[in-house]
Amino acid sequence: MPDRIYNFSAGPATLPHEVLVQAAKDIVNFNNKGIGLIEMSHRSKEFMEVAENTESLLRELMAIPDNYKVLFIQGGASSQFYMIPMNLLGNGKKATYLNTGTWSKKAIKEAHAFGEVVVVGSSEDKNFNYIPKGYTIPEDADYFHITTNNTIYGTEIKYDIDSPVPLVADMSSDIFSRPVDISKYAIIYGGAQKNLAPAGVTFAIVRDDILGQVEHHIPTMLKYQTHIDKESICSQRQRDDQSGRRR
Amino acid sequence: MPDRIYNFSAGPATLPHEVLVQAAKDIVNFNNKGIGLIEMSHRSKEFMEVAENTESLLRELMAIPDNYKVLFIQGGASSQFYMIPMNLLGNGKKATYLNTGTWSKKAIKEAHAFGEVVVVGSSEDKNFNYIPKGYTIPEDADYFHITTNNTIYGTEIKYDIDSPVPLVADMSSDIFSRPVDISKYAIIYGGAQKNLAPAGVTFAIVRDDILGQVEHHIPTMLKYQTHIDKESICSQRQRDDQSGRRR
Repeated sequence: MPDRIYNFSAGPATLPHEVLVQAAKDIVNFNNKGIGLIEMSHRSKEFMEVAENTESLLRELMAIPDNYKVLFIQGGASSQFYMIPMNLLGNGKKATYLNTGTWSKKAIKEAHAFGEVVVVGSSEDKNFNYIPKGYTIPEDADYFHITTNNTIYGTEIKYDIDSPVPLVADMSSDIFSRPVDISKYAIIYGGAQKNLAPAGVTFAIVRDDILGQVEHHIPTMLKYQTHIDKESICSQRQRDDQSGRRR
Repeated sequence: MPDRIYNFSAGPATLPHEVLVQAAKDIVNFNNKGIGLIEMSHRSKEFMEVAENTESLLRELMAIPDNYKVLFIQGGASSQFYMIPMNLLGNGKKATYLNTGTWSKKAIKEAHAFGEVVVVGSSEDKNFNYIPKGYTIPEDADYFHITTNNTIYGTEIKYDIDSPVPLVADMSSDIFSRPVDISKYAIIYGGAQKNLAPAGVTFAIVRDDILGQVEHHIPTMLKYQTHIDKESICSQRQRDDQSGRRR
């Protein structure tokens, strides 16, 4: 093998060598069972254990409280830009956003189709070189959305905001870079390919009381609740196992 | 390694051993470049060549005409159930469906939110043990949707239907099992994990004149056109290369 190349771009990037080697082994022959992990049923005991273990490690590392669901879905953070208002923004209600860069603007654009959108603060006047302060979040908003880090401009919200309405955060590019007080957020989401894993998976950490408030139609696969219901057997088993281990 | 296990289920299933071995090698060290394929930028020359080559092989194997776009997207066939009506079913227009099993029913259910849905034929009366014949497709419908194979009931449409309106087919579980006359279809789609590849990717083969007819809002990432535009540089390069080779 030639000298290893390390790609530190803000997108698909370098992964620990031992993780790559383990993944390569598991693709061909998982746990020496004679079958690759990607050849197995998604309902097999072996695969479900991998999924459960991944969730369990994420919960441990981020100290995620029990009243939050952890979802591994598809479509990237860009799909969360419309899933957030689709699932949270009720008819005749409004959503609030902080505009701190390119990704914030994209999130704001997608929300407009679902109801009133109020941008409560923006740093666009100075090419996004600062994080707005002193803004007011209307208390009748369905949620307040922030992008915690903007890779293009280098501005980052390095603290947990106090919001009078449910706080939604795109943490794609700075998750796992500092301890986060999850309890201050209603939803945290991100594409995995910047800080967590290779491209292909999107994570959403969803507080369990935030859903079911909107009346408009949501396609089945775009409802967070659909994915929560699908993973519930999985999660229940995991919680049982954990409490078993703790005893 | 123990005796190899072959999983022939209708979902994630066995893959050629040499493909698994090649994938394992490429994950750690792609083409001996000192970097894994999943660590590279999606805009790198190396990665784009992999994507272009995949599309090129699919086009060759299925004899896909030049006026069809090939998209590799996410969300599974279940997400196509709503993307099809979202992209094709205009306000005040209707969509037509053939109901031949569980997956057809799910596709029909998702379409109802976008306009009038007419089920022109169904074999539900006999537990889906046959393919309906002698049905009439209204000529003013925006499209006619079929599920070419139903894994649960074992009934399959083994021929290319003549439809007076754009024909849309979910071929998740029988694609590549027979030659298909692509020119009879407006859109062919499917999850990759049944007949093509491991889980994670959804293919859509889209005739280029079928889009842009609806007026309602479509979220950016759910528009086929968005994905066509993103892949256009890629595809153009590939077509240039192909015509170069043909000369």
